[in-house]
Amino acid sequence: MSADNLVRDLAAALAGIPLIDPHSHINPLAPVACSLDDILGYHYYTELAHSAGMSPGPLAKDVAPRERVRAIVGHMDRYDNTAQYAWFLDIARGFLGFKGNCIAPSDADGLFDAAERTFSQKDWEKQVREKTNLEKIFLTNEFDDPLEGFDTSVYVPCLRTDTLVFHLDRAETRDRLDKATGIHVVDAGSLRKAIAALFLHFTRKGAKACAISLPPDFEPAHYDDEYIYEQIRFHDCRDIAPGVFWLIAEFCREFKLPFDLMIGVNRRVYVNGVYQGQDLFDQRTSLIQYRRLFNAFPEVTFPVSVLTSAQNQELVAYSWIFPNVIPNGHWWYSNVPPYIRKDLTERLAAVPKTKLIGYYSDAYKLEFVLPKYDMYRRVLAGVLADEYVRPGVLSESEAVALGTRLLRDNVKDVFKV
Amino acid sequence: MSADNLVRDLAAALAGIPLIDPHSHINPLAPVACSLDDILGYHYYTELAHSAGMSPGPLAKDVAPRERVRAIVGHMDRYDNTAQYAWFLDIARGFLGFKGNCIAPSDADGLFDAAERTFSQKDWEKQVREKTNLEKIFLTNEFDDPLEGFDTSVYVPCLRTDTLVFHLDRAETRDRLDKATGIHVVDAGSLRKAIAALFLHFTRKGAKACAISLPPDFEPAHYDDEYIYEQIRFHDCRDIAPGVFWLIAEFCREFKLPFDLMIGVNRRVYVNGVYQGQDLFDQRTSLIQYRRLFNAFPEVTFPVSVLTSAQNQELVAYSWIFPNVIPNGHWWYSNVPPYIRKDLTERLAAVPKTKLIGYYSDAYKLEFVLPKYDMYRRVLAGVLADEYVRPGVLSESEAVALGTRLLRDNVKDVFKV
Amino acid sequence: MSADNLVRDLAAALAGIPLIDPHSHINPLAPVACSLDDILGYHYYTELAHSAGMSPGPLAKDVAPRERVRAIVGHMDRYDNTAQYAWFLDIARGFLGFKGNCIAPSDADGLFDAAERTFSQKDWEKQVREKTNLEKIFLTNEFDDPLEGFDTSVYVPCLRTDTLVFHLDRAETRDRLDKATGIHVVDAGSLRKAIAALFLHFTRKGAKACAISLPPDFEPAHYDDEYIYEQIRFHDCRDIAPGVFWLIAEFCREFKLPFDLMIGVNRRVYVNGVYQGQDLFDQRTSLIQYRRLFNAFPEVTFPVSVLTSAQNQELVAYSWIFPNVIPNGHWWYSNVPPYIRKDLTERLAAVPKTKLIGYYSDAYKLEFVLPKYDMYRRVLAGVLADEYVRPGVLSESEAVALGTRLLRDNVKDVFKV
Repeated sequence: MSADNLVRDLAAALAGIPLIDPHSHINPLAPVACSLDDILGYHYYTELAHSAGMSPGPLAKDVAPRERVRAIVGHMDRYDNTAQYAWFLDIARGFLGFKGNCIAPSDADGLFDAAERTFSQKDWEKQVREKTNLEKIFLTNEFDDPLEGFDTSVYVPCLRTDTLVFHLDRAETRDRLDKATGIHVVDAGSLRKAIAALFLHFTRKGAKACAISLPPDFEPAHYDDEYIYEQIRFHDCRDIAPGVFWLIAEFCREFKLPFDLMIGVNRRVYVNGVYQGQDLFDQRTSLIQYRRLFNAFPEVTFPVSVLTSAQNQELVAYSWIFPNVIPNGHWWYSNVPPYIRKDLTERLAAVPKTKLIGYYSDAYKLEFVLPKYDMYRRVLAGVLADEYVRPGVLSESEAVALGTRLLRDNVKDVFKV
Repeated sequence: MSADNLVRDLAAALAGIPLIDPHSHINPLAPVACSLDDILGYHYYTELAHSAGMSPGPLAKDVAPRERVRAIVGHMDRYDNTAQYAWFLDIARGFLGFKGNCIAPSDADGLFDAAERTFSQKDWEKQVREKTNLEKIFLTNEFDDPLEGFDTSVYVPCLRTDTLVFHLDRAETRDRLDKATGIHVVDAGSLRKAIAALFLHFTRKGAKACAISLPPDFEPAHYDDEYIYEQIRFHDCRDIAPGVFWLIAEFCREFKLPFDLMIGVNRRVYVNGVYQGQDLFDQRTSLIQYRRLFNAFPEVTFPVSVLTSAQNQELVAYSWIFPNVIPNGHWWYSNVPPYIRKDLTERLAAVPKTKLIGYYSDAYKLEFVLPKYDMYRRVLAGVLADEYVRPGVLSESEAVALGTRLLRDNVKDVFKV
Repeated sequence: MSADNLVRDLAAALAGIPLIDPHSHINPLAPVACSLDDILGYHYYTELAHSAGMSPGPLAKDVAPRERVRAIVGHMDRYDNTAQYAWFLDIARGFLGFKGNCIAPSDADGLFDAAERTFSQKDWEKQVREKTNLEKIFLTNEFDDPLEGFDTSVYVPCLRTDTLVFHLDRAETRDRLDKATGIHVVDAGSLRKAIAALFLHFTRKGAKACAISLPPDFEPAHYDDEYIYEQIRFHDCRDIAPGVFWLIAEFCREFKLPFDLMIGVNRRVYVNGVYQGQDLFDQRTSLIQYRRLFNAFPEVTFPVSVLTSAQNQELVAYSWIFPNVIPNGHWWYSNVPPYIRKDLTERLAAVPKTKLIGYYSDAYKLEFVLPKYDMYRRVLAGVLADEYVRPGVLSESEAVALGTRLLRDNVKDVFKV
């Protein structure tokens, strides 16, 4: 059997595994796209088109969706080398009946119309989930999300704590917290009560994880109650983030929720960037900043995503040593084949296989789950072939079992779904 | 067709593309080598021979060129595993009629004599340019270069600003600036005038870029005129570099010149190193240091080279987000196949193809342009084969078109040549 | 010949080279394992089992060895994807007559019994050395090791200086130094005398290197005698490490011993980790911290190991420029195939081949030398095939010669054995 056939066979076998996607930004009340504008409004396309020279004009709110789609598709021949373009081509071919091998500016209208027809089908969500072989998908919910109106056995709630940790200095956040919990935060005690109320609400609604994204220089810290009181009372919560984070970790312990850490993003680096296309990073960060956290909370599982591939070796080593640290997927700027291939190969060589969460889609609309997982499965199949099957370490079926573990088994075990 | 044949075919097709080399240190008044000493005096060979145990003796000025060549060639069997040795072997075979597969100490005299005969041909420069298929090559000119005596349509001037930015604290620099522009710098206003005069001189002579190499800890900054005045007047321009850099960026905007940033070099780390073989780096640097610059100058294109492959992911991400940031070639310590392969693969996966400047030679003598580009083209062909042709994403001819874009089209577009 | 056959042939040829292993933690008075507990007590297995969920219970001193082995083997199906598991499988198959392809919990007792029988053979050490084709192996001896009772032509002493440099602030260390040398340290002069006595003792016993492992933020410094005196006299040697290190480098120069630097480890990051499984790192470190050292001691050879693959490019560049800096093996968290492959490929592309120490086992028991070197040789064979033989740069026998240089010749030359 030729090399390519082996990879293709492995990828095909992996494609048969029902997915549980452990991280996304899906809105469960509108999980699928309504128009092609919803698809191409995904920040990857607006970023790449803008980076390749598209003016901000077409992105204005009052521009007709069809016009915006024309502009973004019109710039595709400048970025059709990218992995992100390949996702869109897969969507066009897999969901919209597109037959071509590449997308030309002249395809914009045809695709827009096809999307109108396709996405307006009543059972479109069901169709997408079936085609995607998607069993469950995790959400990322703001702390005051009522978590009502959807099936939480499919759309699994997850408590996003970015706002609580980093924006408690805003009166708006404290008002929202007040409203969501009925507790007015005046000191560490009432802050604990309020957070407890959130955890209670989320876990009652079936939440399976807590999550946060963190800047490169962040270091969690335990603050004593007096300091927290002073910050709340006299300083508008300005220097409180490391301590609020610590309190949340305490509740993850109490409520037995894994705490997803997504480490390394600096917000608003490119201030005139497109919506959601302003964030970058400083590669100079280290997991050593989390040593106290990992030591203090042995009972909490921390699925860790790092933004840069250069930090992957830290993630490998910390996961190899700390029982409560596990590598989680391939995030954002590392979510393209060259980084996935490198990082996955490294993780497989040195981290117990039961600790590897292979992938999550990070998708905003369900249509992206399939092309993103397809990209991952192709890379995974290649790595399994090169590192295990060809050297005679594993048989094909054993390699598929290892892949299944990364794609599904570990998600079930770690998040208890 | 076997795998190797595919790569060979792609490389052959790429070899047919006329080159525009966007960065070199060629002296246009003496662009080719006069003797083998000019070739082996390239710092790569003196560095490697010295690093492998050659005493500094043969590098002294008063040593006869033939003796020096014997010494450097005599140590080649200690570093014939390197990419730099391979360039020299290519020069020996391609330009000097050498027939062997490896170079022995006993080959020194024969090669020296062959070089004497070959390089003394009247049309040698023309021959080299033709063999190299070299249409244009960028220079790196000191700010007070008269830019006279050569064809600027072939040898394209580029304003090197290292001295202005980092050595304005030396009286000698200020004297040279005075002499070159007729403007005596006493404050921000006269400094602006002097820089404007340089830009005027350079652009009139056909300059197509401004360039600078920067230490790992550098961070550009806007200084107000009063601070600049005080620095010039009372502190011998000691703490002015970030501000002078900023002024130069302003003139790049005004004169519509791309500003090449070569980020990451620490000068004179190995103080007893060979000439030009004293510079190293600190991997701990970040493009976040340029966030203010990239935000403040959206109209200026910044072709960015990074010294270390670990920083390539930052370059990929910043180029994916900022329209005015583009990845530029593979610099110095990253200019060997393993780093080129990795960095190129990453860039192709996530940066719009219209923003990728594939390569520059960085050469001091024209003879090096061919072997260095050959090395790059072989790596490029391999990456195009592995990432695009074999997975069925592009046909062979489409892959050649993508390679052509990196090798030539983007150089034309970005630098407007 | 198929690709795999080429790699297999190269690996087979490399396997015939007698090994001189330049770094291990072998106890020469007990060089081989007495029981399977000695093998699986290696921190890699206790770490991985613990990280994968094994409670600390079985690691307690009073637990019977057979029970501990059952526990560690019992967790192997959680980490049988790792390189470290593959070493154990090789030991089981190569030394213990195991016939299976993977190790199940039920194999624990059989393997334990086989090990009892095998390891109790009188000539077991001789058998292991012969099977391993091991000529010499370097030790890592505490400064007050008497170095008696073993054949120093096989077990080569090496002066480990971690305790001297980092724990001279402990009265216990100063007592041990006092006892080992008969010199009571009260100032820089007596400290020098004491260190000289250690070097004399070690070199008389055939020591061929000095070694130390260093934290990421360490920077050697020359301290004047008065400062050292004050530190010793009034501050219990608290802030003296960089200066003691410098003195040791001076004696390496005087006694012509290479000084192995193992850079990047933070001790006791995971405070409740298993024995020897508590150390991690901060990727933010740079060889620039050693610029003064490398400049000040041109006569001392520094074989440098870095803990992280991201720092490999610094190691490549510093070795390419500094004659006295040479890359040394693949250490600890980088000692798995993906990092070895990457780092080795990079080193071969740009560092003189005479300066590359390919590998060391770092082993605590002789049984590990063979599987670890086998892993390395497979990777080395693959890199030689891909980078040299397949592109037509070297013939197979030339590639084997290059591999021999990395595996053996350079160890002999650098350490003068």
